[in-house]
Amino acid sequence: MGAPFDAGTQWRAGARMGPRGIREASTLFSFGHAGAYDFEDDVTYLDPANVRIVDIGDADIVHTDTLQSHANIEAGVRKIRAAGALPVVLGGDHSVNIPCINAFDDHGEIHLVQIDAHLDFVDERHGVRFGHGNPMRRAAEKPYVTGLTQIGIRNVSSTAREGYADARAMGSDILSVRHVRQMGIPALLERIPAGKDYYLTIDIDGFDPSIAPGTGTPSHGGFLYYEMLEFVDGLARRGTVVGLDLVEVAPDYDPAGCTSILAAQFLLNAIGRIMHHRQART
Amino acid sequence: MGAPFDAGTQWRAGARMGPRGIREASTLFSFGHAGAYDFEDDVTYLDPANVRIVDIGDADIVHTDTLQSHANIEAGVRKIRAAGALPVVLGGDHSVNIPCINAFDDHGEIHLVQIDAHLDFVDERHGVRFGHGNPMRRAAEKPYVTGLTQIGIRNVSSTAREGYADARAMGSDILSVRHVRQMGIPALLERIPAGKDYYLTIDIDGFDPSIAPGTGTPSHGGFLYYEMLEFVDGLARRGTVVGLDLVEVAPDYDPAGCTSILAAQFLLNAIGRIMHHRQART
Amino acid sequence: MGAPFDAGTQWRAGARMGPRGIREASTLFSFGHAGAYDFEDDVTYLDPANVRIVDIGDADIVHTDTLQSHANIEAGVRKIRAAGALPVVLGGDHSVNIPCINAFDDHGEIHLVQIDAHLDFVDERHGVRFGHGNPMRRAAEKPYVTGLTQIGIRNVSSTAREGYADARAMGSDILSVRHVRQMGIPALLERIPAGKDYYLTIDIDGFDPSIAPGTGTPSHGGFLYYEMLEFVDGLARRGTVVGLDLVEVAPDYDPAGCTSILAAQFLLNAIGRIMHHRQART
Amino acid sequence: MGAPFDAGTQWRAGARMGPRGIREASTLFSFGHAGAYDFEDDVTYLDPANVRIVDIGDADIVHTDTLQSHANIEAGVRKIRAAGALPVVLGGDHSVNIPCINAFDDHGEIHLVQIDAHLDFVDERHGVRFGHGNPMRRAAEKPYVTGLTQIGIRNVSSTAREGYADARAMGSDILSVRHVRQMGIPALLERIPAGKDYYLTIDIDGFDPSIAPGTGTPSHGGFLYYEMLEFVDGLARRGTVVGLDLVEVAPDYDPAGCTSILAAQFLLNAIGRIMHHRQART
Amino acid sequence: MGAPFDAGTQWRAGARMGPRGIREASTLFSFGHAGAYDFEDDVTYLDPANVRIVDIGDADIVHTDTLQSHANIEAGVRKIRAAGALPVVLGGDHSVNIPCINAFDDHGEIHLVQIDAHLDFVDERHGVRFGHGNPMRRAAEKPYVTGLTQIGIRNVSSTAREGYADARAMGSDILSVRHVRQMGIPALLERIPAGKDYYLTIDIDGFDPSIAPGTGTPSHGGFLYYEMLEFVDGLARRGTVVGLDLVEVAPDYDPAGCTSILAAQFLLNAIGRIMHHRQART
Amino acid sequence: MGAPFDAGTQWRAGARMGPRGIREASTLFSFGHAGAYDFEDDVTYLDPANVRIVDIGDADIVHTDTLQSHANIEAGVRKIRAAGALPVVLGGDHSVNIPCINAFDDHGEIHLVQIDAHLDFVDERHGVRFGHGNPMRRAAEKPYVTGLTQIGIRNVSSTAREGYADARAMGSDILSVRHVRQMGIPALLERIPAGKDYYLTIDIDGFDPSIAPGTGTPSHGGFLYYEMLEFVDGLARRGTVVGLDLVEVAPDYDPAGCTSILAAQFLLNAIGRIMHHRQART
Repeated sequence: MGAPFDAGTQWRAGARMGPRGIREASTLFSFGHAGAYDFEDDVTYLDPANVRIVDIGDADIVHTDTLQSHANIEAGVRKIRAAGALPVVLGGDHSVNIPCINAFDDHGEIHLVQIDAHLDFVDERHGVRFGHGNPMRRAAEKPYVTGLTQIGIRNVSSTAREGYADARAMGSDILSVRHVRQMGIPALLERIPAGKDYYLTIDIDGFDPSIAPGTGTPSHGGFLYYEMLEFVDGLARRGTVVGLDLVEVAPDYDPAGCTSILAAQFLLNAIGRIMHHRQART
Repeated sequence: MGAPFDAGTQWRAGARMGPRGIREASTLFSFGHAGAYDFEDDVTYLDPANVRIVDIGDADIVHTDTLQSHANIEAGVRKIRAAGALPVVLGGDHSVNIPCINAFDDHGEIHLVQIDAHLDFVDERHGVRFGHGNPMRRAAEKPYVTGLTQIGIRNVSSTAREGYADARAMGSDILSVRHVRQMGIPALLERIPAGKDYYLTIDIDGFDPSIAPGTGTPSHGGFLYYEMLEFVDGLARRGTVVGLDLVEVAPDYDPAGCTSILAAQFLLNAIGRIMHHRQART
Repeated sequence: MGAPFDAGTQWRAGARMGPRGIREASTLFSFGHAGAYDFEDDVTYLDPANVRIVDIGDADIVHTDTLQSHANIEAGVRKIRAAGALPVVLGGDHSVNIPCINAFDDHGEIHLVQIDAHLDFVDERHGVRFGHGNPMRRAAEKPYVTGLTQIGIRNVSSTAREGYADARAMGSDILSVRHVRQMGIPALLERIPAGKDYYLTIDIDGFDPSIAPGTGTPSHGGFLYYEMLEFVDGLARRGTVVGLDLVEVAPDYDPAGCTSILAAQFLLNAIGRIMHHRQART
Repeated sequence: MGAPFDAGTQWRAGARMGPRGIREASTLFSFGHAGAYDFEDDVTYLDPANVRIVDIGDADIVHTDTLQSHANIEAGVRKIRAAGALPVVLGGDHSVNIPCINAFDDHGEIHLVQIDAHLDFVDERHGVRFGHGNPMRRAAEKPYVTGLTQIGIRNVSSTAREGYADARAMGSDILSVRHVRQMGIPALLERIPAGKDYYLTIDIDGFDPSIAPGTGTPSHGGFLYYEMLEFVDGLARRGTVVGLDLVEVAPDYDPAGCTSILAAQFLLNAIGRIMHHRQART
Repeated sequence: MGAPFDAGTQWRAGARMGPRGIREASTLFSFGHAGAYDFEDDVTYLDPANVRIVDIGDADIVHTDTLQSHANIEAGVRKIRAAGALPVVLGGDHSVNIPCINAFDDHGEIHLVQIDAHLDFVDERHGVRFGHGNPMRRAAEKPYVTGLTQIGIRNVSSTAREGYADARAMGSDILSVRHVRQMGIPALLERIPAGKDYYLTIDIDGFDPSIAPGTGTPSHGGFLYYEMLEFVDGLARRGTVVGLDLVEVAPDYDPAGCTSILAAQFLLNAIGRIMHHRQART
Repeated sequence: MGAPFDAGTQWRAGARMGPRGIREASTLFSFGHAGAYDFEDDVTYLDPANVRIVDIGDADIVHTDTLQSHANIEAGVRKIRAAGALPVVLGGDHSVNIPCINAFDDHGEIHLVQIDAHLDFVDERHGVRFGHGNPMRRAAEKPYVTGLTQIGIRNVSSTAREGYADARAMGSDILSVRHVRQMGIPALLERIPAGKDYYLTIDIDGFDPSIAPGTGTPSHGGFLYYEMLEFVDGLARRGTVVGLDLVEVAPDYDPAGCTSILAAQFLLNAIGRIMHHRQART
């Protein structure tokens, strides 16, 4: 489902075109084979016999009205969940994560995993509580969100020193790109509680601007492709990924299309691995 | 004053960067002369001895909150008026015209003149009353707005047949680009009540996409540069222009910078003529 | 139907992305109204009660194989015609017109009307007979094509002096942009046989590069928007438009998206008028 | 000959890549015919039997050293003239016109014709006498430049009121785009002394930004393609064009390539007509 | 030699402009020194006393006719070989490798080394046997191609599981980017038979999209610059590189020019090392 | 202070817009906090209580006159130094380093540290002594420049073998990216004399084109973000950084804005660390 909403951004906008860009890029990977064969793993992911991907279109966005737009996104995620499917939401800005998490209020405990350059843990500033700097704070307030792992956080963030203290107090484990590289992916996975239900939220600016220039607030020194693919593969083995969003792709700042291609390539490979390990467990 | 707000747009956004783009482009015209000499008119406009242009910066925009952002813009325009200056607002999307008009509630009668491809006369749709499709309706509801002249309107608009009927019923004179060209600028001016106070709102998409590609909803078949400069010159002779906004410049869709240059060039020349004719009358 | 084929181009390619670009741009004009109201004509075109537009997707293109790709396009047009609908094909390069015309071999007499900068009347050069420089010649050879009107032709063309002689000998009336402007649209319509079935082929480079930069071989001094809209309106009154293609839109050379918007805006308005006048006659 | 020098520009640079851009674009017009057939005139221009175009490459530019770079350009023009050929120089910024005119000091009387948005008649400012705002002043100082016709001049120029007075005093006839349109091309030609040797200098910003966005200082409201082609055709009939430069094409601001295409298309057609009328006279 | 042919591509085209882009970029490296001094190796490569680089222009491409275009490329490579020179071909899409390999049928045994994201080992699909997904299969069928090393292969390829089995059965050693990084360049070189004649084919998408965005089908997670330069240096020491192509550079998707610069920089340094080690051996 | 001068460049220009681009990008990092909190170091850099950043605007550039422009830059740096502030100059091309170093003639001994792809050690070529290939040579000639460390130097440089010999003879330590990576940042720092006053000059092309495409002469295989941030942090601990310039950012080649963002992000973090360690020492 697309959530083409970007009224939550502070600097340059354009994430509303993200779902279009990612869908367009995804056609690069639709060669019509019987699934997606990965020779490194010797596995055919997304075998049509086992997995079916359905695009239900975009949520209705009511421009000028943040809360109504969020409510419509929430309703969409609830419908996907009711159908027994894995919700995958394409932003839009990171504020669309707020209704996504809301829609899991009847699910049971969730551990939230975030890939992002920014902490997004502002409680309120200038009256804004539902913008793209707030979603992790809103999530941490939920009783059913039992913990957070926030990786890729770096540089002068939109969050001041107090924000980090608050996040840690509310159950967050915060790690920079350099932290993750120093410890390695296996050690990183060890810090995440095993056997849980995970919700994964990916801000494309968690990746390096060299491969993801097309976003509102790029921050140098980010993750590369295989680092995060191996991380998501490990996460999908460690527990159950029950929901997923990928946000802040802004095609207007992506003249060569590489950011949309990254989003499409990463999502396809991530969904393949999530479904593969889920089936392997059953 | 800049009003970098674009949460009121329906299709592609980016008008929030409009004030930056126009200011940047305006440096092309700052050669440090003693005013701006136009050899065709043999007049030095914007003579520093008579006219002073002051940029008071941007209004505070609270992303996610349309009404608060509009309130801040309104406060800015009131301050400019209180200082006895001519308010010139750079959008942002066309919804910023709503607070601009609000700020004239203690002024006396105003005739509203709009240059635009779209009628912007929607009362309410999907709950939106303060988006970029509503400003002319909101203005027409004001008791102090005694009439409207809407020029450049063309193509399949965001307004259905009823919208045109409503607009005419509420005092609007609606003319397409072809209508204006057929009658000529002098005849067009004759249709506007003389000796009034005018508020001029310019949506950059009133101009042709060949010279103004950098906007959210371009519409082919628009006005050219001198047509509108001659119109504004005539308007400034016919009465008093008391306020001015120019909206919907979106630099992200303006790779060669021509739209920002058009906005800067048009505004500078328009302000020069407005001030010149005002002084000529006194 | 899209025909995303561009192996027929000589200079810069990219028209294969034309159907994607035009479809994307067409969403700008989908406001969900009950038809498209044009206040200048006071007509609601494309009233859903009378007209239904269906996109049957793209024809299968077999890269490396021009003839097979053309055959697939031809099959698509035949299916649309068999369904009683008006075929509208989005190129791709101008060579896709060849299979479109082929698919009318059981139709009866057709007069071909072309809007283009180039004559496209080369018989064979370097072994190429089905490239984007040949379609008008291929069409003129058909017994059921009883005449051609080629407008917008200008500048040093891909066709030498002999090509013009051949075209005239085979029944073509060739007019430049300046010829058309000098005589006016009504006189131009008078040169076209009345009451006939017309096939209309539009190369986007017939329009001026100022509004259609996104094409392989732009040529300065072309038509503007309303000139051609009024021409197509007149043509649809003068006889029956039985088929339509619009080719050579290359989104890679269209950074602001104006060419795709022109194509979408022109097609929507042209189809509206074609269907309106057809119903008016019945 | 290319003169890829742009150290004379005040605002955005990049004209140094102009010769590359124009040469690249010129390949669009090299279809390998026996000359360039224009069906409107029924003439084959640039017939290889009569005309040979030779590109002698770029003049050596010594970055950091304006005077030495100019000297190298001057030497190149002298060599072309010594070979009995028509010198055609591709800028580079407009300052390259200075050495071009210098190279005609042994030629006899010349009437200078300029197509430009700006008067370029500054004597000296901040120590600059050989920048892109000075060439027409430098030319007017030459004893062998017996007059100037400057067309297209418009808007707030880089030249103050005094500059216009000086220019007129030194023999210049200054006309804006609107002046030229009002009088028409034939009347414009009448104002130019007949039967003279003309040097033609074309700043691409004399054309409208809609077709020539790729330049350092675009100015809205400029000339269109056929207006100027008909003017140059008339000039070539009225006397002898003995030299020609086209400057200020900046490919970096020309994302769709239309400005380079305009330059190449205009030059090719202009040279064709200049040589054709010259031969017609002999 | 340039081979500006891209009718073999499936997704976005534009590789036909590759030779132009690479030649243009190569001027960045032409400082006119006596050879190219590399201070890390303390070697002057491409010393004009020993090495001469000659550009013989582009092969004639007959648009619409894949086989004829391929035949013309093959003829060009045969001529270069007949002159005793090292053939270096600039694509165009990867299908141009097919005629390059054909042109070595009288050479003796060759080991093929491919740097690419995709296996390109499809036998036939939808009737396509000579497109950009087929060249390695076509090469492996040659009796004189005695083995293949395919490196950089990754992600969901255009080749299904069977393709990998076929390739291995026909003598191919397939390694991903992660495989190569894990073993290191020296170990990779050990897997290639020593003392052989190598033909090296480089698809620019073997490199990472961060440095090579300008290509039709980018795939994240590719090689970086020095990894491959060290590999080619080692290969040139291990045996004799007898031919070389670099394909799929698409300047239209390369807005900053970095992909063309990568191609030019890599080729110049690779040719320098190939010639240097060849001379060192004799 | 900005130094928007680029007449010293040899290939593509545009660095004159560098100061504008970097200032624009710097607004991404101005969230209005009380300083810039870095959670990895648990330090609030640029605490307004201790550090004040003042932008004194651009130096006056006299186009066409290199020496006068340099003199104006030199005067600006002298004024900043006289005010007791740390001079930070934004280029412009690398030639602006020449007047920066000149302005330290009354300072005492300086060790010059350069991050760059090119050696910039040409004495004179074609008469150019003050272009962007000469600054390190000019600096080395100063009696108060007691040594140089030049890192990131790579590829076929603009300097021939002799240049390297000269540089080493004049006290320079030259290291490539691979050299630096092999030894590590701590070992690199050990090679720089401790406890000295350092002047740091950063050519943005010292960074990799993947993160810094927007520059005139990109060279593949450069530094990444954290490598250099850690180096500057170490340098600021090892001695006193007394001056700083960052040059060759060319926004026209930076369509996604990442190069300007890199420059702004790097400068802000570097200045923060320089001031922090300076205060820690006092």
